[in-house]
Amino acid sequence: MEASNLKERLEESRILTEVRVFAPATVANMICGYDILGFAVNEPGDEVFMKRVATPGVRITEITGDEGRLSYDTDKNTVSACVLSLLEKLGIDKEFGVEITLHKQMPIGSGLGSSAASTVAGLFAINTLLGNPLTKQELLPFCVEGERLACGTGHVDNVAPALFGGITLIRSADTFDVIKLPVPKDLHVAVVFPKVDVPTRDARQLIKEKVYLKDAVTQWGNIAGLIAGLYESDYSLLARSMNDVLIEPTRAILIPEFYEMKELALSLGALSFGISGSGPAVVAVTNDAAIAKVIAAAIAAHLAAAEIESFQYVSAVNNEGPKVIHASYETI
Amino acid sequence: MEASNLKERLEESRILTEVRVFAPATVANMICGYDILGFAVNEPGDEVFMKRVATPGVRITEITGDEGRLSYDTDKNTVSACVLSLLEKLGIDKEFGVEITLHKQMPIGSGLGSSAASTVAGLFAINTLLGNPLTKQELLPFCVEGERLACGTGHVDNVAPALFGGITLIRSADTFDVIKLPVPKDLHVAVVFPKVDVPTRDARQLIKEKVYLKDAVTQWGNIAGLIAGLYESDYSLLARSMNDVLIEPTRAILIPEFYEMKELALSLGALSFGISGSGPAVVAVTNDAAIAKVIAAAIAAHLAAAEIESFQYVSAVNNEGPKVIHASYETI
Repeated sequence: MEASNLKERLEESRILTEVRVFAPATVANMICGYDILGFAVNEPGDEVFMKRVATPGVRITEITGDEGRLSYDTDKNTVSACVLSLLEKLGIDKEFGVEITLHKQMPIGSGLGSSAASTVAGLFAINTLLGNPLTKQELLPFCVEGERLACGTGHVDNVAPALFGGITLIRSADTFDVIKLPVPKDLHVAVVFPKVDVPTRDARQLIKEKVYLKDAVTQWGNIAGLIAGLYESDYSLLARSMNDVLIEPTRAILIPEFYEMKELALSLGALSFGISGSGPAVVAVTNDAAIAKVIAAAIAAHLAAAEIESFQYVSAVNNEGPKVIHASYETI
Repeated sequence: MEASNLKERLEESRILTEVRVFAPATVANMICGYDILGFAVNEPGDEVFMKRVATPGVRITEITGDEGRLSYDTDKNTVSACVLSLLEKLGIDKEFGVEITLHKQMPIGSGLGSSAASTVAGLFAINTLLGNPLTKQELLPFCVEGERLACGTGHVDNVAPALFGGITLIRSADTFDVIKLPVPKDLHVAVVFPKVDVPTRDARQLIKEKVYLKDAVTQWGNIAGLIAGLYESDYSLLARSMNDVLIEPTRAILIPEFYEMKELALSLGALSFGISGSGPAVVAVTNDAAIAKVIAAAIAAHLAAAEIESFQYVSAVNNEGPKVIHASYETI
C-alpha cells in the first residue's frame, strides 16, 4: 500500500469538524441567454466557515463584509435557512449542530449572484461536513430554494454556474435540467460593478411580459450561435452571437454610462459587452486576458470621471465551482 | 502522372453542356427552432435538368410532377427566375442561354421545402454549368430570393439545409449567417406528408405577433439544449429539448390527427415529434432507422384508417445538399 493512500484512509477515519468553503460569483444570462445561461468567475466570491458543534441546530455566529445588511435570523438568512432545510430533509436537524460564519467578499445587489455564492458555499460546506451524502445535482434544488428566499424567485441561472462551475445551460429550471457547456480556453472577462443601486426585483419588474416573436427569433438565433461558438471555440461566432435585443434595451436604462462603457469595451477589442444578471455590474467578454485588463481599467477610469465608484474583476471562467479552502479534523 | 488525374484534366478541358442536379427536401424548424434551424433529408427531393443552348436567355421547356401547378413563365417560375437573376448579376444574361426541365419529385405545399429544393437544384445546376464561379455561401442570397418569389418571404431555414446539407443554424437571416451543426450518426427521421392542403402563407398568418417572454425562455432553453445535444450526440438531451411550446400549439390545429400521430410516434420510441416547417408534413426524430420505419408505417396506417392519404419517407440526415447526378460534356 502506498503512503499517500494510507494518508487518505487515515483522514477518512477522522471526523471533519470545521470547513471553510469558497463559492464563486457568477455572470447570469451571458449577455443573450436570459434566464438560461450563466458562468462562474474566479473572483470575486464568498466564503463560508462552518463548524460542527454539540448543540443541535443552525446558528450564524458572524457575518463580515455585508455592511450590516444581512440577517442573523436562521430562518431569514439564506445560508442558514437552506442549510437547515437540508438537515431537515435528511432528518438530522434535531441532532446535528453547526455554527456558521459568512464572509461576504463581494457586493450585495450587484448582479453578480451574491446570494447564490453564499448559498452555494453554505450548502457545499454542510454537505462536506456530512461526508458528501448529496451530489451537486441533488444540492441544486436546495440552492434554488435559498435564492428564492433572497430574491423572491429562484434564479437557477446564478446558482447553477456557482455550484457546477464553468458555463452552464439551464435547459429547464422546472426540472433542474442543467448542462455544462465547453469553455473556450482563451475566454476571459472583465467585470465591473459601478456602485449604484439596482435591486434585482426592480430590474425584473421593468421587463415586459410579452415580446415580439421576431425579436424572440433574433434572440434564439443568437443563443444557438453562442452554444455552437462555445463548442467550436469560434470567437468570431461568439462575438456575432452575444447580442441581447430583448432585455438589455430595458435594463440598460438603470445603469449609468451603460452605452458609453459598451462603446469603450468594444472599441478596445471586447467580443461582446452587456449586463451581468440584472445589473448594475457589466461584463466584457474577450479572448485575451490582457485585453480584459485594459478594458476593466478603461471602464473604471470612465466611471471615475463621471464620479461613479466601481470595483473591477478580471478573470477566466471558473470551471470548478465551490471548493474547500480549509478543513479541520478531530482524530477518533 | 496517374491515369485518374489525367482523366480529370481531360474532363476539365471539355465544356459542360448538360447537367442534372438533385436537391433534397428539408425539415425546417427541427421542431423547436422556429425560423433558425432546419435539416436536409435523403428523400424526397427535386431534380433539375439544365442544358446549355446557343440562344441567350432562360427557358423552362418541361415541368413534370407538379400536377400543372407551376408556371412556365421565366419571371414567375422560381427556378428560372433565380437562374436569370444569377446570370444578370454575373452580367452574362445577354449571351448565355439555358433550357431547364424541372422534375418535381415531392409534393408542393407540403412543409418539406418543395420550392427551396427546386431553387437550390436550379442554382446549383447553373453554377455547375458555369464552372462554379460562386461558392455555396455566395449562392445563398439567390436561393433566398427564389423562396421569396415562391412563398412571399425568404425562408432561409429551408434553403440553407437544402444548399449546405446537414443540420443548419441560421443565426441571422439578414446577414446570411449560416452555421453547419454536427449530425449525430444514428439520427434518422420518419417524415409523413398527409395529403391535405395547408398553404405556407396561411400557416404563418396564424402565428401571433407577440409571445409571452416566459414561453420564449422555455423555447430558447430547448433550442440551446438541442444545439448542445447535437454536439454531444446526447439523444436523451435531444429528446428533452425538441419541444415546441410556441408555434406547434397554433399550427397543429391545421393538421388533422396531429396529436394522435404524436402520441403514436412517441409511444413507438420517437425522441421527438412535430411539424415539418409550416406543415402539414410531420416528422418523427429517432436514433434508429428501424424505429423510424415502424413509426412511418404506423402513422400511415393511422391516417389511412382516418381516410387520409399520405406519403412516407424514412431517411438519415442528408449531409451533402445538392449533387450532380449526371453531366454531359462537349469535347473542345
